[in-house]
Amino acid sequence: MANPFTLVKKDPNSKARLGRLVTAHGVVETPCFMPVGTQGTVKAMLPRDLKELGCQILLGNTYHLFLRPGHEQIRRLGGLHKFISWDGPILTDSGGYQVFSLGATRKISEDGARFQSHLDGSSHLLTPETAVQIQEALGSDIAMILDECIPHDAKRDYVQDSTARTIRWAERCLNARADADQLMFGIIQGGLYEDLRRDCVAAMTPMKFEGFAVGGLAVGEGEEQLNAISSFTVELLPENRPRYLMGIGRPQDILHGVRAGYDMFDCVIPTRNARNGTLFTWQGKLNIKRAEFAGDGRPLDDSCGCYCCQNFSRAYLRHLYMAGEILSSQLNTLHNLYFYHRLMDKCREAIRAGRADLWPQWLDAEAAS
Amino acid sequence: MANPFTLVKKDPNSKARLGRLVTAHGVVETPCFMPVGTQGTVKAMLPRDLKELGCQILLGNTYHLFLRPGHEQIRRLGGLHKFISWDGPILTDSGGYQVFSLGATRKISEDGARFQSHLDGSSHLLTPETAVQIQEALGSDIAMILDECIPHDAKRDYVQDSTARTIRWAERCLNARADADQLMFGIIQGGLYEDLRRDCVAAMTPMKFEGFAVGGLAVGEGEEQLNAISSFTVELLPENRPRYLMGIGRPQDILHGVRAGYDMFDCVIPTRNARNGTLFTWQGKLNIKRAEFAGDGRPLDDSCGCYCCQNFSRAYLRHLYMAGEILSSQLNTLHNLYFYHRLMDKCREAIRAGRADLWPQWLDAEAAS
Repeated sequence: MANPFTLVKKDPNSKARLGRLVTAHGVVETPCFMPVGTQGTVKAMLPRDLKELGCQILLGNTYHLFLRPGHEQIRRLGGLHKFISWDGPILTDSGGYQVFSLGATRKISEDGARFQSHLDGSSHLLTPETAVQIQEALGSDIAMILDECIPHDAKRDYVQDSTARTIRWAERCLNARADADQLMFGIIQGGLYEDLRRDCVAAMTPMKFEGFAVGGLAVGEGEEQLNAISSFTVELLPENRPRYLMGIGRPQDILHGVRAGYDMFDCVIPTRNARNGTLFTWQGKLNIKRAEFAGDGRPLDDSCGCYCCQNFSRAYLRHLYMAGEILSSQLNTLHNLYFYHRLMDKCREAIRAGRADLWPQWLDAEAAS
Repeated sequence: MANPFTLVKKDPNSKARLGRLVTAHGVVETPCFMPVGTQGTVKAMLPRDLKELGCQILLGNTYHLFLRPGHEQIRRLGGLHKFISWDGPILTDSGGYQVFSLGATRKISEDGARFQSHLDGSSHLLTPETAVQIQEALGSDIAMILDECIPHDAKRDYVQDSTARTIRWAERCLNARADADQLMFGIIQGGLYEDLRRDCVAAMTPMKFEGFAVGGLAVGEGEEQLNAISSFTVELLPENRPRYLMGIGRPQDILHGVRAGYDMFDCVIPTRNARNGTLFTWQGKLNIKRAEFAGDGRPLDDSCGCYCCQNFSRAYLRHLYMAGEILSSQLNTLHNLYFYHRLMDKCREAIRAGRADLWPQWLDAEAAS
């Protein structure tokens, strides 16, 4: 496959890059953020509202869709794009992250991972080959290899063995590919060990992947290690491939990642926080539950152009949250995703203009206070 | 106040009427359906999506808004329209229906109804005067008098005494009016007794109300009694005032009510049923939970123009319901309210054209099967 990624520009003020990734369902301008649509929906969002706020690409969770409604069902219904009515690009994970999160109910072998469904306890085997087959049935634009997301406190021996297995699985994933239109990304593991990260990059980058992800971060290692390992690893990756920092993150983590040279990000933070009443503004995070907002007629963020900020007050958003109304999740999610997408817009703008002063400033008021 | 209602046309094939009701926030074409926005939101609907489906007027619940966030809070924030970002007409009930539903925790006297909040057990007194003051603080376009919604199995003596009290309360409500822009509707009670309904109409219609509602129906009396009493009562009401059949209802009940001569309807059925997975189509009701829909790629109703039917399959809607996704409530509500508004469109169209063949046909497939 021809390289679908074009490196458009490098930032003179950081290692950030501006890029274009061509997929079967359209072009993604990078750096980009991918909202998480776990069960075939970005929770509380109509697809047309996602389009409106500038969403370019969604992430779908293979584990959840495999169990319910089932990848074969989705294939019969015309694929994931049609099923969820999203005609833009979709990236699917391999299911590995969720399977490995199951803890005691899953068992890893060279073959793959055997696990029990969280829905009905049924037993399933996820192998590199089935991970590819499931993602091909879903028909996503970008598939991820099956990897093990290693706990941040794993012993070095385990990290080394697990990473070596992920590398063997990567080869098996490539060999299992049947869909010429689907891009596939390798995943760099190696825990918090620079030499193991380097070895993994050295083994993975000669393989015929259209992009590379860095995994196993934002799993409890703390901001310092996250930034150190993500910065170290990204520099080893080929410049002409998209680089995806998996599961990241908070606005400050994304800003760090972009300036380190990553192109793609995903995280449940904007959507999950929204449902819990934690909202992002350019003045910092805000907890809409707080009594001080009961009579506050101002919008969440008076510099924000989203439907929520253009039409509703903090007092109303607090009322909806306290009353347990569905509209609370809808408006909060809409706002947080709008914020994240403007964050990415500003990053691209700063790189495009080559101006250090255009980089978005985001102060976490709660962390600062 | 000048009569805000214009009787535009009478149907030659039934007692249905086409009308226009002018309010401070715009004109309502009747017959109309009012979605219920209990806590300052039609559950799971953005106001812009309500506008898009043709919603003309919302109903707000005084009891809920009085308790949370409080009518004075809403007044300070600029009134209910601004609070919920709805610039069209709003009708508020008086709070009586919810208070009387509280059963053992409320006590009725000539003065009013003392009740305990379902939220925190605090004690409150709702009188005809406070019911008016609260609705004026909310700033709704149409206020309802405080009435007692009598249980359908109440003894005749109780119905007679209660109805007499509602008539006295109606006078007190009129005397308490201070807002010249707010319309006020009287409510006809009298239970299932035709003579008591007649007496109530005789006492209420000389009072200076801009419209009249018929209450105390759809409270368990059954379809036959509902149709009999609603038909009997509507004929006694003045032709030049809007007539509102409170809390009605199912599509067949609304069709019956329109043809009997009612102009306004409200009910939680389309929204509540949506959240429970019961969806209206022109071929009848459909329970989206059913396993038969798991692989059904067709839209809910292929004759429906709503965003849900234009973009999603029954299989997807079933998946969202089974997965407990918020989007399930959003799409189902959007569809059911679209259906109800098209039902009203078709009624108005049939009256306007004076054509019996244009009346909407709706078959309740579940009831018929």
